[in-house]
Amino acid sequence: MLTIAVDAMGGDHAPKSEVEGAVRAARTLGVKVLLVGQQDVVRRELAEHDGAHSLPIEIVHAKEVITMKDSVDAFRTKRDSSMRVAARLVREGVAAGFVSAGNTGAVMATAKLVQGLVKGVERPALAGVLPTVEGSPVVVIDVGANVNCSPGMLAQFAVMGEIYSRIILRRPKPRVGILSIGEEDHKGNELTRAAMPLLRSLNLNFIGNVEGRDIYTGQVDVIVCDGFVGNVALKVSEGLVEMVKHLLHESLEATITRKIGYVLSKTAFSDFKKRVDYSEYGGAPLLGVRGVCIICHGRSNANAMKNAIRVAAEFSQGRINQQIEDELRLSTGDKIAIQAH
Amino acid sequence: MLTIAVDAMGGDHAPKSEVEGAVRAARTLGVKVLLVGQQDVVRRELAEHDGAHSLPIEIVHAKEVITMKDSVDAFRTKRDSSMRVAARLVREGVAAGFVSAGNTGAVMATAKLVQGLVKGVERPALAGVLPTVEGSPVVVIDVGANVNCSPGMLAQFAVMGEIYSRIILRRPKPRVGILSIGEEDHKGNELTRAAMPLLRSLNLNFIGNVEGRDIYTGQVDVIVCDGFVGNVALKVSEGLVEMVKHLLHESLEATITRKIGYVLSKTAFSDFKKRVDYSEYGGAPLLGVRGVCIICHGRSNANAMKNAIRVAAEFSQGRINQQIEDELRLSTGDKIAIQAH
Repeated sequence: MLTIAVDAMGGDHAPKSEVEGAVRAARTLGVKVLLVGQQDVVRRELAEHDGAHSLPIEIVHAKEVITMKDSVDAFRTKRDSSMRVAARLVREGVAAGFVSAGNTGAVMATAKLVQGLVKGVERPALAGVLPTVEGSPVVVIDVGANVNCSPGMLAQFAVMGEIYSRIILRRPKPRVGILSIGEEDHKGNELTRAAMPLLRSLNLNFIGNVEGRDIYTGQVDVIVCDGFVGNVALKVSEGLVEMVKHLLHESLEATITRKIGYVLSKTAFSDFKKRVDYSEYGGAPLLGVRGVCIICHGRSNANAMKNAIRVAAEFSQGRINQQIEDELRLSTGDKIAIQAH
Repeated sequence: MLTIAVDAMGGDHAPKSEVEGAVRAARTLGVKVLLVGQQDVVRRELAEHDGAHSLPIEIVHAKEVITMKDSVDAFRTKRDSSMRVAARLVREGVAAGFVSAGNTGAVMATAKLVQGLVKGVERPALAGVLPTVEGSPVVVIDVGANVNCSPGMLAQFAVMGEIYSRIILRRPKPRVGILSIGEEDHKGNELTRAAMPLLRSLNLNFIGNVEGRDIYTGQVDVIVCDGFVGNVALKVSEGLVEMVKHLLHESLEATITRKIGYVLSKTAFSDFKKRVDYSEYGGAPLLGVRGVCIICHGRSNANAMKNAIRVAAEFSQGRINQQIEDELRLSTGDKIAIQAH
């Protein structure tokens, strides 16, 4: 049975969301889950769930916890943290992958250090998966792992993101674009302009520059950018969704007529919320590390955790890393490596 | 009477939105409007409005039009374009400022070339004005005029944006932040880290790094960034708002119950739409050019045009440029100039 390790102490609602997500995953996905964290705490939480003892769930003890307030360097000093122990289970082959809703910087550093990189990969990249008008999700890569990028790194992100879109999100021939500020090839900053010929030379369905507004149209499946720009794009989106929810709520509550309108249309709202809910997409994969590492939002609920476990399993079954290695070596590796240095 | 020139041929709905906006402005704001464009076309449109002949509106003929499909260089070759003639009216002192919903790149280039820069300003910057949860709008500067920026340029953007927020948006002591990907000073890319000590040294209410999600919280009044990142942030927001509108509409239409809900709550929706409607903010000022230049979205309606004319008038009356010149010279000019080169 495929085994996925879960950092039970990572998120803002740990270990509640993690344990409940693990229970749902073990019950419905046919995977075994290792809950990694402080044994007593996790055991107590697990006991809240009826029938959990008969599910394929095991607790693996880890005495330390990395909090959101810890610096990224905590991954070095806290050698027995739940996220580090989870990554170690992957390195040792006990688990096929691990999922964490902990401190993003610390999870990335841990996975890189403990699991190592897929052969040919220069830098791992965090792939954000976002909803679109068309219904098919879009992959934005990188959303925060690499602040300063070379053209060669962007080309590698394109290759990794394309494979992820094709295998996990089941897009038949993913359209790949580069995030810029105009459609023509010469528009953009130094990095995007230098990356352009390199991306055109790859064996991808590359459509050139795309703009910020194209993220949500569904007209592109993979959007490549450096981690600074990608992180800004992601956080701007989060902030705007929060504002929209807040303002809609306020406007609806303002009068009694609207209150009736609100009650009647609330099914529509929960519909809508589900369609833009990140938790349906199960977190952001860190592409390019050996094994599997899925990083969830700190605020992840049980549904998000369950979906992240599902994605980790599919990632492993889809042999994504083997395909990344092959693709980088066979068709594009030399080209990218030469340009990148 | 304060006079504002309007490029009547610029926007997607030109000259309809421009002429109607001018009529509303002339009727309610106590300003004189010069409508610049092809005389016959503009005259015909103006005749659609009852009583327009008694308003302080004049038509200034310009035989050429720069379209959205023209390259930015069209501002050089089409010397008699409506936007260039409008900018010339500002340079010659006939108008205090000009407003255009035309090709943004061409408008910026035209204003820079024809009007010239405020003394001490290294590069003009486009200031986006966005709504927040708190109700007080936030200035994001630069949103597309400068793709590659130096730390000194970011410091100048901070000074210009702060004055705009204080005088036009009436924020008492604007909080200024720099757009980055983490709160601590050391988080960010090379540019933001290099700009940090410079921004701290200025005589501003500087609050350090802010993240993408802070744009819409209302916890910061002026957000400084390079034009590439700012443009991505702006366009991501536009795209997401489009998606939200689309999905809400779809969800609401899905059943008859929801249709009733929709009808009942539509007052709330128009409330909400008004609160996130860019047209209320009257376009983006190009800060740092002599005279005044307000750039509107290509899709601007008459309300947006009227508000842009209002902002142009307030900009001139508030003597923004004099204050930018003084501020750059007196308190910060030397510091910024030294660091910028």
